[in-house]
Amino acid sequence: CTIHNTNVRWRLPAVCFVWQLSMIILFGVFVRYNEESDTHWVDYRKGNNITSDIENDFYFRYPSFQDVHVMIFVGFGFLMTFLKRYSFGAVGFNFLIAAFGIQWALLMQGWFHSLDYTDGKIKIGVENLINADFCVAGCLIAYGAVLGKVSPVQLLVMTLFGITLFAVEEYIILNVLHAKDAGGSMVIHTFGAYYGLSISWVLYRPNLDKSKHLNGSVYHSDVFAMIGTLFLWMFWPSFNSAIADHGDGQHRAAINTYLALASTVLTTVAISSLFEKTGKLDMVHIQNSTLAGGVAVGTAAEFMLSPYGSLIVGFFCGIISTMGYIHFSPFLEEKLKIQDTCGIHNLHAMPGVIGGIVGAIAATAATNTVYGDLGLENTFDFTGPFAKRVPTIQGGYQAAGLCVALCFAIGGGIFVGLVLKLPIWGDPADENCFDDEIYWEVRQFLLTFHGCIKSIKSDSKDIYNVTKDFRFK
Amino acid sequence: CTIHNTNVRWRLPAVCFVWQLSMIILFGVFVRYNEESDTHWVDYRKGNNITSDIENDFYFRYPSFQDVHVMIFVGFGFLMTFLKRYSFGAVGFNFLIAAFGIQWALLMQGWFHSLDYTDGKIKIGVENLINADFCVAGCLIAYGAVLGKVSPVQLLVMTLFGITLFAVEEYIILNVLHAKDAGGSMVIHTFGAYYGLSISWVLYRPNLDKSKHLNGSVYHSDVFAMIGTLFLWMFWPSFNSAIADHGDGQHRAAINTYLALASTVLTTVAISSLFEKTGKLDMVHIQNSTLAGGVAVGTAAEFMLSPYGSLIVGFFCGIISTMGYIHFSPFLEEKLKIQDTCGIHNLHAMPGVIGGIVGAIAATAATNTVYGDLGLENTFDFTGPFAKRVPTIQGGYQAAGLCVALCFAIGGGIFVGLVLKLPIWGDPADENCFDDEIYWEVRQFLLTFHGCIKSIKSDSKDIYNVTKDFRFK
Amino acid sequence: CTIHNTNVRWRLPAVCFVWQLSMIILFGVFVRYNEESDTHWVDYRKGNNITSDIENDFYFRYPSFQDVHVMIFVGFGFLMTFLKRYSFGAVGFNFLIAAFGIQWALLMQGWFHSLDYTDGKIKIGVENLINADFCVAGCLIAYGAVLGKVSPVQLLVMTLFGITLFAVEEYIILNVLHAKDAGGSMVIHTFGAYYGLSISWVLYRPNLDKSKHLNGSVYHSDVFAMIGTLFLWMFWPSFNSAIADHGDGQHRAAINTYLALASTVLTTVAISSLFEKTGKLDMVHIQNSTLAGGVAVGTAAEFMLSPYGSLIVGFFCGIISTMGYIHFSPFLEEKLKIQDTCGIHNLHAMPGVIGGIVGAIAATAATNTVYGDLGLENTFDFTGPFAKRVPTIQGGYQAAGLCVALCFAIGGGIFVGLVLKLPIWGDPADENCFDDEIYWEVRQFLLTFHGCIKSIKSDSKDIYNVTKDFRFK
Repeated sequence: CTIHNTNVRWRLPAVCFVWQLSMIILFGVFVRYNEESDTHWVDYRKGNNITSDIENDFYFRYPSFQDVHVMIFVGFGFLMTFLKRYSFGAVGFNFLIAAFGIQWALLMQGWFHSLDYTDGKIKIGVENLINADFCVAGCLIAYGAVLGKVSPVQLLVMTLFGITLFAVEEYIILNVLHAKDAGGSMVIHTFGAYYGLSISWVLYRPNLDKSKHLNGSVYHSDVFAMIGTLFLWMFWPSFNSAIADHGDGQHRAAINTYLALASTVLTTVAISSLFEKTGKLDMVHIQNSTLAGGVAVGTAAEFMLSPYGSLIVGFFCGIISTMGYIHFSPFLEEKLKIQDTCGIHNLHAMPGVIGGIVGAIAATAATNTVYGDLGLENTFDFTGPFAKRVPTIQGGYQAAGLCVALCFAIGGGIFVGLVLKLPIWGDPADENCFDDEIYWEVRQFLLTFHGCIKSIKSDSKDIYNVTKDFRFK
Repeated sequence: CTIHNTNVRWRLPAVCFVWQLSMIILFGVFVRYNEESDTHWVDYRKGNNITSDIENDFYFRYPSFQDVHVMIFVGFGFLMTFLKRYSFGAVGFNFLIAAFGIQWALLMQGWFHSLDYTDGKIKIGVENLINADFCVAGCLIAYGAVLGKVSPVQLLVMTLFGITLFAVEEYIILNVLHAKDAGGSMVIHTFGAYYGLSISWVLYRPNLDKSKHLNGSVYHSDVFAMIGTLFLWMFWPSFNSAIADHGDGQHRAAINTYLALASTVLTTVAISSLFEKTGKLDMVHIQNSTLAGGVAVGTAAEFMLSPYGSLIVGFFCGIISTMGYIHFSPFLEEKLKIQDTCGIHNLHAMPGVIGGIVGAIAATAATNTVYGDLGLENTFDFTGPFAKRVPTIQGGYQAAGLCVALCFAIGGGIFVGLVLKLPIWGDPADENCFDDEIYWEVRQFLLTFHGCIKSIKSDSKDIYNVTKDFRFK
Repeated sequence: CTIHNTNVRWRLPAVCFVWQLSMIILFGVFVRYNEESDTHWVDYRKGNNITSDIENDFYFRYPSFQDVHVMIFVGFGFLMTFLKRYSFGAVGFNFLIAAFGIQWALLMQGWFHSLDYTDGKIKIGVENLINADFCVAGCLIAYGAVLGKVSPVQLLVMTLFGITLFAVEEYIILNVLHAKDAGGSMVIHTFGAYYGLSISWVLYRPNLDKSKHLNGSVYHSDVFAMIGTLFLWMFWPSFNSAIADHGDGQHRAAINTYLALASTVLTTVAISSLFEKTGKLDMVHIQNSTLAGGVAVGTAAEFMLSPYGSLIVGFFCGIISTMGYIHFSPFLEEKLKIQDTCGIHNLHAMPGVIGGIVGAIAATAATNTVYGDLGLENTFDFTGPFAKRVPTIQGGYQAAGLCVALCFAIGGGIFVGLVLKLPIWGDPADENCFDDEIYWEVRQFLLTFHGCIKSIKSDSKDIYNVTKDFRFK
C-alpha cells in the first residue's frame, strides 16, 4: 500500500501535453479535408456530375456516425459505471482515452487507408471519423478487462499501442487479405478483447481480494450502467452499418443487427434465470450478455445472412455469453490468472470469434443465385485485383483474418502488458483498486440532510458522523 | 405472502426459449429482405430509374427509426424507473418485452401489411422495423398500468396477446377503414392504454396498500425518470413523423409535434403549481403530463393542423393530463378499482382519445384550398379504391377508427387479464409489489464506506449494520 | 429567511397561462408552414425541377436538429444536475424555460428572418426549429450563472427578455454586418454567458455562504452531470454544422468541431491534474472545460480552419477554461461580485470570445487559393449586396459582430437584472438557495429499507429516524 505511488501529478499532465502537441504537429504535416468536406466540393460536384449536395457522403453516414459516437462515449462509458465506487473512473477515463485515441487513429488509419499519394496528405471525411471511433472501440473494450486496476497514464499508454496495433491489423485483414468486416467482429471485438485480456494476464494481481469489497455494484450504479447498455444495444445497428456499402448494404446490416440483438435478449434472460436458485435475474448478465448478438453479427451484417440467420446467431450468443459469466469467468480468474473486471471475454471475445466464424461461413456459402451477379460483386468487392476471387476462397480469407486479429491481440497485449508492468505509471495498490478516491477529488458520497441532522445531532454523535459526510478519514 | 410462489426459475426460461425458437422457425419460413435491403437493390435501382442510393428508403427513415428506438428502450424504460425500488424491473422488463415484441410484431404486421403474394414471404425493410417498434410501444404503455404488480412471465404473455391484438386492430383501422394515424394516437396510445387499464382492472389487488411504502419515488429515482421523460419528449417529433409521407409529410409532422409538446410543458407546470398549497411543482406531473401533447397530436401530425392548431392541442392536453393525475387517478383507483401505477390514463388514454378526435375533426375540415388538389390526395391517400372518398367522409372513418381501437383494447384487455389471473405465472404477493428483490439479484442498496465504518465499528454495532449492507435479511 | 415569500402558486401558473395563450394568438396571426413543410411541396417540387423528396431540407438537417434538441434538453439539463440537491430544479426548470423559449424564438427570429412579405406570415421549416433551439441555448447558458438562486418566474422573465435581445443581436450580426457564425460562438455563447453574468452581478447575494453546504455535488449527482456533459460533447459537431451550408459546409463544420473537442479533453485533464496537490482530477473541470473547444470553434467551424487549426483552438481552450475554474472563478466572485454557479465564464464566455476572434482571423486569412473562387463565395456568401466584400473586410465585420454580442449581453443583462431585483418574483432566501425543497415536492431523499428497519427498530430509535425517511420536518 505504501510502496505504490499513485501521485500522477507530473506524469499525467506531461503525457497529455506532449501527446496532444505531437498530434497538432502531425496533423499540421499530414491531415487535410477530403474532396467532400473541402470548399472545392462545389467544383468536384460539377466535375463528377453529382446532381445534388445530398449525395455528399456526409448525408449517407452522419446519422450513423453520431450513433456510433454515442456508443463510444456514453455506451462504453456508462456500461462501466456499474462498480459502486469507480463511476468517475469509468466514464472519465473512458472519455480521456477515447478523445486521445480518435486523434491517433485518424493518423494511423489515415496513413494506411486515406493517404493521397499525389501530395502525401491524409484526406479526411466523415467515414474517417467513424473509423477512428471504431478503432477506439477496440481500446475501450480492452479497458473493460483492467477497469479499476490501472492508472490513467497506463490507460493512455495502452491506447497508444492499441491504436497502432489496430491500424496494422486492420490493414492486413481488410486490405491485404481483402476480408470483409463491416461491424468489426474480428477487427474490433476479437482484437480489443484479447488485447485487454492479455494485458490483464500480464498484470495479474494475486492479492486483488484486498479490494474485493469495492468490486461490485450498488443499486443506483447498476441503473447507471443500464444507460450504457441500452445506448450500445439501440445504436448497434448503426455501428454495424455505419461503413457498409451505400444503399442496400447499410440497410441490410441494420436489419440483421436489430434482429440478432433482439434474439440475444431472450436467451440471456433465460439462462440468467435458469442458473439462479430461485430464478432471479442478474443485472450483470442483462447489462452485458444482451449485447453479444451485436458483436457476433458484425462481420456478416452486410451479407445475405437472412433474418432468421441473424436470430440464430443472437440466440446462441446470448446463451454462450451468459454461461460465460456464470461458469467461465471464475475459471478464467482462478486457473488462467486472468482478472477480467467487466467480463469482456464473455461480451466481446467469444462473440467476436463466433462472429468471425459466422462471417467465414456466410462468405463461403454466398452464391450468385442469392446475391445476384452484381450484388455478389458489390458485397464482397470482387473488383480490381480481387475480380477473380470466388466465395469459397473468400471464406478462407475471412478465417485467416480472424487468426490475424487473434495474433496481433495476444502478441501485442503481452508486449504492452510488460511495458505497463514497469513501476513508473502510478498504478494503485491492491487494496486501492476499484476506488475513485485514488485519482479523483471525491467530495461527498451521499446526500447530507441538513434538517435531519440538526434534529438528531445532540442525541447521537455517531449518526451525525455517518450521515454528515461519508468521506474517508 | 407465503402462498404466492414467485420462483420463476423454470417458467421464465421455458417461455423465453420456446418463444424465441418459434420466432426463428417462423422467420425462417416467412421473413426475407425487401427490394431495398436485398443485394438485388442494384438491379432494382436500374430497373426503376433511381438515380442515387440516397433514394433508398433507409435514408429517409433511418434517423427517425433510431430516435423511435431510443424512445422504446430508454424512453419508456427510464420513465418507469421512478419507483424507489423497482428500477431494475422497470428498465429490465421493459427491455425484455420490447425485445420479444419487436420480433412478434414483424411477423404479425408483416402478414397483414408486407406479405408478398408472389412467394408468400414477408419482405422487410426499415419501415417494418419502425412499425415493430410502434407496435411494442402499445404493450409498453400497458406495462405502465401494471408496473410492479406482475411477473416477467405475465408481461411476456401480455405482450404476446397485445401485439396480436394490435396488428389486427391496426389492419382494420389503417387498411379496412383507411383511417390515417401517423403518430398512432388511436392505434398505439388509445389501444395500449385501455388494454393496460383493462388488465389492471381484472387484476385488481384490494390489499395493495401493504406495499404502499414502496409505491413512490426517492430523489435520485426521480432524476433517472427524467432521462426517460426527456428522451421521449425530444424524439416525439421523430415518432410522429417516422412513417409519414416522404418530403412534406415527415417535415410537417415533426413541426406539429415539436410545437404541441412545447405548449404542453407550460400548462403542465401551471396546473401542477396551481393545485399544490404553496405552488410547488410535482415531479410526477413534469415526468408524465409534459408528454401528453405528443400523444394528442399523433393522428393529425401529418395534416395541415397549422402551427397554432398544434399549440392549442398541446395547451389543453397539458391541463387535462395534469388534472388527471391530481383528481382522476384517485377516483379511478377508489371507485373504478383500476390501479394505474404510472398513470397511463392521464398520459396515454385521455390524450390518445383526444388525438383521435382532433384527427377526425382535422380530416373533416380539410379542403382543396388549404391542401391543394395533389396535396389532399397525397395526404389522405385518396387513391385506388379510395379515390372517390372526400374529407367529410374521411372524418367519419377516423372516428370509427377510434372506436375500433377502444373495443379491441377493452375487450382484449379483459380477456388477457383473465388469462393472467391464473395462479401459474409467479406474480408477487400484495406485500411484495414494487420490489426488485423478488425477481432480481440485488446486491446492495447503498454505497458502503469502508473507512468510515471501520472507524465507528467499535462504538456502535447498529450503525455498522445499517451502513454495511442494506440487504434484506 | 422569513421575509422571502417563495410561494409561487399564483405567479407561476399565471405567467405560464398568459404567455402560452399569447403564443397561441401570435402563432395564429403570424406562423404558417413554409414551402417544404406544406402540402403544396409536391407542386413546388415540380415547379422547381426537384427530382426527389430527399432534397427537401428536412433530410439535410433533421438528424442534426435532433442532436441539437438533445443538447438543449438533456445536455444543458443534466449538466446542471451536479448540485447535490438541486437536480429537479436543474433539469426541470431547464425544461420549462426551453419549452417556452423555443416558441417565443420562432416568433422573434421569424419576424427578422422568415417573414414572407407577400402575406405577412412567418413561414417555418426545420431550419427555424434549429434556430429556435439555438436561441434558447443562449438563455440556458445564462441560467447556469444563476442556478439555484432564482425562482422559476424569474427564469421565465429572464428567458422572455433573453430571447428578444438575442433575436435583435443576431439580426444585426448576421444580416446587417453579414458576419458568419455557424456555431454561434458570438451570437449564442458570448451573448448568453455575459447576459447571465451581468444578471448575476446585479443579483449579487453577499450572504450566499448561508447555503454553502448545498453548493456542491455528491457522488451520484456528479455522474448524472456527466450525462449532460457527454451528450453536449458528442453532439457538438451537429450543433456547429446544423445550419451550415449544405454539402461541404456541414461536413467540414462537423470535422472541425470533432477535432477541437478531442484536443480540449486532453489539456483539460492535464491542467486539472497539474493544479491539484496529488494530481487528482476534478469532476468540475471534466464536466465543463472539456466542452470549451466546441464553443471556441463555433464561428470558424465552417471555414477552412484545417484539421490542425481546430486542434490548436481546442488545445488552448482546454487550458484557459480549466485555469478559469481554478483561478478566475474565485476572483470573479470575491472581487467582481459575480457569483457564477456553473462557471459559465469559463465554459462559454472566454471560449466564446476566443471563438469570435478565431473567426475574425480565419475570415481575414481566407484566400481564393485555399477556398477556390466558388468556395470562397459560397462560404462567406459574398453575393447580392455583399458581392464585393473581400476576406480582409469580412474579418473586420466579424470582429464588429463580437462587440455587438458583448454590448447586447452586458447592457441587456444589467437591465434584466434590475427587473429581476423587484421583490415580486418569489426568489429564495440566501439560506435556501440550491435547495429543491423550495419549489418542488420532494418526497424522500434516500431508499428506505423496510426489512432492515424492522429488524433494528427496537434497538435504536435514532437509526430508525435516520433511515426511515430523510424528509425535512
